[in-house]
Amino acid sequence: MKRISILGSTGSIGTQTLDVISHYPEQFIVDGLAGGHNLKLLSEQVGKFRPRKVSVATKDLADELKTLVPAGTEIYYGDEGLLQVAAGTDADFVVTALVGSQGLRPTLAAIEAGKQIGLANKETLVSAGHLVTAAAQRRGVKLLPIDSEHSAIFQCLNGESMKDVRKITLTASGGSFRDRTREQLKDVTVEQALQHPNWSMGAKITIDSATMMNKGLEVIEAHWLFEMPYDRIDVLIHPESIIHSFVEYEDCSIIAQLGNPDMRVPIQYALTYPKRMKTPTQPLKLAEVGKLHFREMDYERYPCLQMAFDSGRAGGTATTVFNAANEVAVDRFLKGEISFLQIEDVIANVLNKHQIVMNPDLEEITAADAWAREAARS
Amino acid sequence: MKRISILGSTGSIGTQTLDVISHYPEQFIVDGLAGGHNLKLLSEQVGKFRPRKVSVATKDLADELKTLVPAGTEIYYGDEGLLQVAAGTDADFVVTALVGSQGLRPTLAAIEAGKQIGLANKETLVSAGHLVTAAAQRRGVKLLPIDSEHSAIFQCLNGESMKDVRKITLTASGGSFRDRTREQLKDVTVEQALQHPNWSMGAKITIDSATMMNKGLEVIEAHWLFEMPYDRIDVLIHPESIIHSFVEYEDCSIIAQLGNPDMRVPIQYALTYPKRMKTPTQPLKLAEVGKLHFREMDYERYPCLQMAFDSGRAGGTATTVFNAANEVAVDRFLKGEISFLQIEDVIANVLNKHQIVMNPDLEEITAADAWAREAARS
Repeated sequence: MKRISILGSTGSIGTQTLDVISHYPEQFIVDGLAGGHNLKLLSEQVGKFRPRKVSVATKDLADELKTLVPAGTEIYYGDEGLLQVAAGTDADFVVTALVGSQGLRPTLAAIEAGKQIGLANKETLVSAGHLVTAAAQRRGVKLLPIDSEHSAIFQCLNGESMKDVRKITLTASGGSFRDRTREQLKDVTVEQALQHPNWSMGAKITIDSATMMNKGLEVIEAHWLFEMPYDRIDVLIHPESIIHSFVEYEDCSIIAQLGNPDMRVPIQYALTYPKRMKTPTQPLKLAEVGKLHFREMDYERYPCLQMAFDSGRAGGTATTVFNAANEVAVDRFLKGEISFLQIEDVIANVLNKHQIVMNPDLEEITAADAWAREAARS
Repeated sequence: MKRISILGSTGSIGTQTLDVISHYPEQFIVDGLAGGHNLKLLSEQVGKFRPRKVSVATKDLADELKTLVPAGTEIYYGDEGLLQVAAGTDADFVVTALVGSQGLRPTLAAIEAGKQIGLANKETLVSAGHLVTAAAQRRGVKLLPIDSEHSAIFQCLNGESMKDVRKITLTASGGSFRDRTREQLKDVTVEQALQHPNWSMGAKITIDSATMMNKGLEVIEAHWLFEMPYDRIDVLIHPESIIHSFVEYEDCSIIAQLGNPDMRVPIQYALTYPKRMKTPTQPLKLAEVGKLHFREMDYERYPCLQMAFDSGRAGGTATTVFNAANEVAVDRFLKGEISFLQIEDVIANVLNKHQIVMNPDLEEITAADAWAREAARS
């Protein structure tokens, strides 16, 4: 039996994690769940999985939740609630599926508590990769990727030596606007941006896919997860999202991981690693797919990706600020305050104004994050 | 330093093996070379790599070779010569790149002598898979595949557990006649059949690719190499030969190995396993390839492949006879005695007449092989 806590249980990754767990009741126990504002879904999850500790966004929601869940369930809220679910349970394994840099402190707390991490919150590594990876190494904690691309790379490295790796390539579908020119992006609506061609995901990550920001965050995440220099990370456009990513070795042999787009596969792999077990997904039939397409990434078409490499190479608080500015810009786009292309402008302006702090500690990261949010709002 | 002997050094795999070795003179020593009739090439190889033992097809050739190579080189010929190069040197590793079932006895001798095997002679496993794999297991010898498809599968199994494998899929380019109907195959010439679209190989294997016999032999080889039941081996048409083969796991995750078609990559991987080292091949650029195509295998279009599965499932001497009949039929086609489509007829007729011996010993395999050759000639 593996004991699991989930940060972000009512989001897309959280609900799919619980779906995976529900197929193997004899393998997994849920010990903690942290949701946000969706009390209805969270209370259903608590009723079904009976975690010991549950957390919600605010005190009011916590009080309301008490009336909806079995007596004896410990209920928390806010930042303290996230820390309780991350580090205060008997879980062996914590799935970090919060959206944005709010995932950083609870993830660090879970690592300090010696829990294995299923990492779906890429902003944690983007914001403070050096702190998170150093803490994981110090505590002997594995960071198991849940993103489909990073899970693919992780699987393609099985049984191989990192020093035989020439480079890793993340594939990118191109998102909802991949067939539009930049000219055609000027007037796109929020609704159009939310239509991802292959994956069903939350709003923030779907917008990030359309700007290629998501791939940029993944590049930085891959840099930290696999200790890979930026000049050995490539991005390739692959509209079908069938090849989820691949590794090229010194001998020019490429190992790739493929499958139908279904997040339950990488989620389950993180939960069961190094074992594999049946998933409810549809097996991939390449003969039915017929063709796979590939084309070069266009960095001028997708400046967010270029900024990701640039801020990754700059290091220090540059990626913290890059991520925080994007979070605010996406929020402002979703609220209708700025246009789609202004997301990039906001990030570029904030990055330009930022004075990078090298090798920042948690305080400095928090300060840079707060500064960037403020700058991105104005 | 790894000491290497090569059976079939003047053939396509043999010369490419020596090419690989020549890039790493500090890693490999050549201890034995067995060629056939090409004295010019063999004597050049001996001059360059200075093996202790060398073998050729006949006594006359052996006498002639003596005048062409450095004094002190031990020269052998015929079956005894193959056994000397296979088992009578200080080699740690023997590359078995002979064509056809003549590779069986020397391969068994090398295994009995405790040498690791780089297996390019697929007919060995097709003809006597149960004997070869049992001997390898008993002597603690690894059979490292050199075929690109089997090397791909082998690489895709790195770090994984065989019990998590759902099935393996061998990709097939379709050979030189993949775009012709059976009607259009009636009058094809030897010259046309020898034009393989992707790989530069010897005559026998190029014809075997056109009949899909080669894929049939690979299916049987895969059955033995990976202890895989026939109903968990699939074949998929993939004209570009970029995905060399793949493994599907229980969780529906597929791990594939890709690269430009270049036999030096699987050859070198067998020689350096589990390490990887640089190869002189061109790295694969998927964006330049642009598209990969896949379609279902058509077993009626390619009856040799169906016969491979059928004889594999029948077991015993069925695959021995299947292979031997094909060797004769291909030889007769290359000599202009029979038409392209009659290759299939010859094999089918011989299989139909054969009384299968289950769990045959080496004598019974030799007898079945001889019987099938005789039957295929008439």
